[in-house]
Amino acid sequence: MKRDVWITEVALRDGSHAISHQFTVDQVRKVAKALDDADVPVIEVSHGDGLGGSSLQYGLSHTNEMDLISAATEVVTKAKIVVLLLPGIGTVQHLKEAASRGAKVARIATHVTEADVSKQHISFAKELGLEAVGFLMMSHMAPTEKLLEQASLMESYGADVVYVVDSAGALLPHQVKERVHCLRNSLDVPIGFHAHNNLSLAVANSLVAIEQGATRIDGSIRCLGAGAGNTQTEVLVSVLDRLNIQTGIDVYKMMDVAEEIVAPILQKPQEITREGLLLGYAGVYSSFLVHANKAAKQFKVDAKDILIELGKRKVVGGQEDMIVDIAAEMAKKTVKA
Amino acid sequence: MKRDVWITEVALRDGSHAISHQFTVDQVRKVAKALDDADVPVIEVSHGDGLGGSSLQYGLSHTNEMDLISAATEVVTKAKIVVLLLPGIGTVQHLKEAASRGAKVARIATHVTEADVSKQHISFAKELGLEAVGFLMMSHMAPTEKLLEQASLMESYGADVVYVVDSAGALLPHQVKERVHCLRNSLDVPIGFHAHNNLSLAVANSLVAIEQGATRIDGSIRCLGAGAGNTQTEVLVSVLDRLNIQTGIDVYKMMDVAEEIVAPILQKPQEITREGLLLGYAGVYSSFLVHANKAAKQFKVDAKDILIELGKRKVVGGQEDMIVDIAAEMAKKTVKA
Repeated sequence: MKRDVWITEVALRDGSHAISHQFTVDQVRKVAKALDDADVPVIEVSHGDGLGGSSLQYGLSHTNEMDLISAATEVVTKAKIVVLLLPGIGTVQHLKEAASRGAKVARIATHVTEADVSKQHISFAKELGLEAVGFLMMSHMAPTEKLLEQASLMESYGADVVYVVDSAGALLPHQVKERVHCLRNSLDVPIGFHAHNNLSLAVANSLVAIEQGATRIDGSIRCLGAGAGNTQTEVLVSVLDRLNIQTGIDVYKMMDVAEEIVAPILQKPQEITREGLLLGYAGVYSSFLVHANKAAKQFKVDAKDILIELGKRKVVGGQEDMIVDIAAEMAKKTVKA
Repeated sequence: MKRDVWITEVALRDGSHAISHQFTVDQVRKVAKALDDADVPVIEVSHGDGLGGSSLQYGLSHTNEMDLISAATEVVTKAKIVVLLLPGIGTVQHLKEAASRGAKVARIATHVTEADVSKQHISFAKELGLEAVGFLMMSHMAPTEKLLEQASLMESYGADVVYVVDSAGALLPHQVKERVHCLRNSLDVPIGFHAHNNLSLAVANSLVAIEQGATRIDGSIRCLGAGAGNTQTEVLVSVLDRLNIQTGIDVYKMMDVAEEIVAPILQKPQEITREGLLLGYAGVYSSFLVHANKAAKQFKVDAKDILIELGKRKVVGGQEDMIVDIAAEMAKKTVKA
């Protein structure tokens, strides 16, 4: 089967956010089997925040993710099952267990400026015989030169692929173009692109990435992903089919899987709400939203202003304390004005 | 106020499809007032299929559209109210009445190859002192040279603006680029672009149109439009703001209008379903869907195949009979095979 672009379906991982991590073994079996039958080459299964994500902080999974990984590997006949791991949330023990359950690929994800923390996990994944993918999250927060530096680190650690990840759905088409173009011309490994749809640009940005030479693209069927969802897979493969770019995926079957198997799982349809739009516009992590709303209430300021300020200050995951500080500052200014 | 791009908000016209033409005077007053307050320059109010569309065939309006036009013109202080008219559905009498209710702009819409039927209505709109906009629907169905020929006709009739209209949400970015580029370089009047989101490309295609010199862009707040909806206005203005392209619209206020006033009107959130995607993929009118589903059932063939075949044969509105013919042909072939 000829494929110009390899699609990784992330609904069973990123989509886990959209249903509060409540996937069941039965749902995963059905979805993975249907995706495999439609010739999707790679299917990601993990907690939304990666292996080990099930916790009070990130949301408790309904079912142990290792059992979901087993469920998926048991039903697929052609597709590879991939897992996501964020060092610090997941550990090498998780990787080992996932490999024993049949996962073939490990995606090691770090903040765009923190590739160095991926070294150990990329090496360990390779030792386990897994394909290793480097996954640079919040890629909009670093200039292209910095992104290249970090991507090169991941390549030097042994990553077989490096992804530009637009976690906040904040990248504009010209920014995707610049980033993918630079990586494509500087690295030897294939380049991937993972989008979110907060600015309604996920499909278009994926097309731009492909034009610039990216060959690994993430999609979420029925847009089942965090925030405003990801690149809607069945839409992307339809558009690529119109452009004669081969994904090897059966377009009609994907439309049916989306409508008949995935849509009924969604608690409510994915759409671009004010909150999703704001996150993309301001370029901040979706997990900041709940904190911003709380601080806005406490200090009687607008949550929108807090999010915009967080974006300006390039606040990253782990700096949640700054949200209250910013709200307090804003409240002071309002009183003075 | 500096505006690089003039946005026309179509939720109170194209969005009428999404709620089965059930807009009330109260809803129109609230939405129009809020849009005006957010500095949206142009607001369209009409039946989803244009003036005179209220009928058993196109769907009966809850409220007489002329009363909705009055409601809108009464509450706005800055925005112009525009009406849509498809010659054959609406008449010059409708235009006269709309003008007497305070409409300032008439958009005269024809199939992309039938601009000649707009002559009388464009002339009459001008006589009434209205701004006249030519609206070339299903623009993906004609090659660029044909589109230019038809757009030139509209300009020669006195149109003050000519729109490229992607009624089926079927245009790909390079096709938008070619079309708008050609019109921009050949006509004297401003060029507009109206997208649908069936392929999740509405915002991106609007950006391409603007890059190529289009200055009039349609949007539907909260994506409230036919099929998969249009270009989500509050998302588009947020993206344009990030690109420093001035729309004169208050981004924050638009986000609030979408969330607090428009979202509650929707019967269900707008998303890209199998049907919406199929229409964009095949490039056929959304009104064909119900006929295709019926014929599929009757002849025991797949509605998807019927829609694809309709797209291939470039069937246009008014040729609904062909749908049954195609289904019958397919059924025969299936029996033989």
